[in-house]
Amino acid sequence: MSMVSKLNDSIIKSKSYLCIGLDPHPNEMFVENVFDFNKQIIDVTHDLVAAYKPQFAFYEALGISGLQALKETISYIRNVNPNIIIIGDAKRGDIGSTAKAYAHSLFEFWDVDIATVNPYMGMDTLLPYLEYNDRGIFVVCRTSNSGSGELQNLVVFDDEKKKLFEFVADLTFGISDGSNVGLVVGATYPEDVKIIREKHPQVPILIPGVGAQGGDLHACVKGAVDSMGKGFLINASRSIIFATKNPVDYPNITRKRALELRNAINESLQKLEGESV
Amino acid sequence: MSMVSKLNDSIIKSKSYLCIGLDPHPNEMFVENVFDFNKQIIDVTHDLVAAYKPQFAFYEALGISGLQALKETISYIRNVNPNIIIIGDAKRGDIGSTAKAYAHSLFEFWDVDIATVNPYMGMDTLLPYLEYNDRGIFVVCRTSNSGSGELQNLVVFDDEKKKLFEFVADLTFGISDGSNVGLVVGATYPEDVKIIREKHPQVPILIPGVGAQGGDLHACVKGAVDSMGKGFLINASRSIIFATKNPVDYPNITRKRALELRNAINESLQKLEGESV
Repeated sequence: MSMVSKLNDSIIKSKSYLCIGLDPHPNEMFVENVFDFNKQIIDVTHDLVAAYKPQFAFYEALGISGLQALKETISYIRNVNPNIIIIGDAKRGDIGSTAKAYAHSLFEFWDVDIATVNPYMGMDTLLPYLEYNDRGIFVVCRTSNSGSGELQNLVVFDDEKKKLFEFVADLTFGISDGSNVGLVVGATYPEDVKIIREKHPQVPILIPGVGAQGGDLHACVKGAVDSMGKGFLINASRSIIFATKNPVDYPNITRKRALELRNAINESLQKLEGESV
Repeated sequence: MSMVSKLNDSIIKSKSYLCIGLDPHPNEMFVENVFDFNKQIIDVTHDLVAAYKPQFAFYEALGISGLQALKETISYIRNVNPNIIIIGDAKRGDIGSTAKAYAHSLFEFWDVDIATVNPYMGMDTLLPYLEYNDRGIFVVCRTSNSGSGELQNLVVFDDEKKKLFEFVADLTFGISDGSNVGLVVGATYPEDVKIIREKHPQVPILIPGVGAQGGDLHACVKGAVDSMGKGFLINASRSIIFATKNPVDYPNITRKRALELRNAINESLQKLEGESV
């Protein structure tokens, strides 16, 4: 099954557009062991999510033992529910045989369904990832940080005047039939989520930045919803996984936060359906 | 000592502008063990190089054992000669606390002197790397692949009309006093090496793409040489480390290839000095 089909399938089966970021900031965890920490999150949220997104940086920062914990975490998710999409948030970007090695690492060693990738080096550098039939990429397009516009909002001329992030989105569909690519667009710029959706009605959009980074949920859902009522993921990490450091309360509070966000997204969608009738 | 001082120091002490890429392509090595392979290269080339550049993708593609071999390789280089600069070619790029985690990983766990980074997400995402006094970054600016111009050659308007890669180079000096940043410019575009050097007379330039990728060495050296006669590195990988698969010949042939390239760079410089007198 193609990446986009698997993703939509997971959204339908889980009745959820929620992606939880598994980002073990060392000073924020209530236990020291990274796998134990992730296991607790997964145990109380796996029926509430369409996807998990481990951010590779936090595992790499811990060295070999961190990477072993990442491997264990991915296997654990696969065992709990093989339908859950795993997004390897590594934002790799490199040329030729190096890109091929990264694709090998992400899809064969780490066994993620989707890898985030960086477009700066050109679309030819993304092709090795698309050779895997049942996997795919989310291309970093418009990011949630305050300085993201420095390059991404530059006005460039293609067949028409557009911003660099729009140009990147358009280029992406030059290398794919749409079955294996998605775009990353930060929740802090909901108007840009809308721009991307209008130009690319069926593209899956990964939207980080709701929660700790303060993106407007309803505006994002409104911008992101496609004509089929699927095709996006709202990612939250810190607001769910670091809601408390108290080990006794942790399972209940973490589940509550995930449930609240899942429901808030679904209510946003219902409200939009109501508006459009 | 600052990154740029350490780099110039290594170039002077080694009398070499050569950087060897330690890129263990699995099908090209004459031994299976990655550390053994790297050790052989280091043993016969350490007196000929200013820097080594492990490309992280090839270690990550091998999973945990590959990363263990990378760790062993870096320690080995430090023991052989602590003056040799180690460039962690990971091309990371991410925001806020994630960028901080990558900087921690590269400079504290992996212990590299210089990390390559991707500018697409904005200059704020590069700041965490600059908090380390004795380390630094090479910002990916103009890459050697055929599709690199797709984004990097886009014409943008700043105070003047310029290409995106020039804009990136200029931005880089907005976040640094020049003591801890360099730029990556591919050898396949020597005219762009020249453009960068003219605008930024003192920036260290890392030039990959000579050798297997076919960049013109003399044109690159001519473009890259700065007014102080330092400030660049020519990187070669496959043309040196995969010159033969015969284990008996390997030490001699590998050393010969490295020596030839080191000498060719130095002869190019002497020729230019002769021309300018």
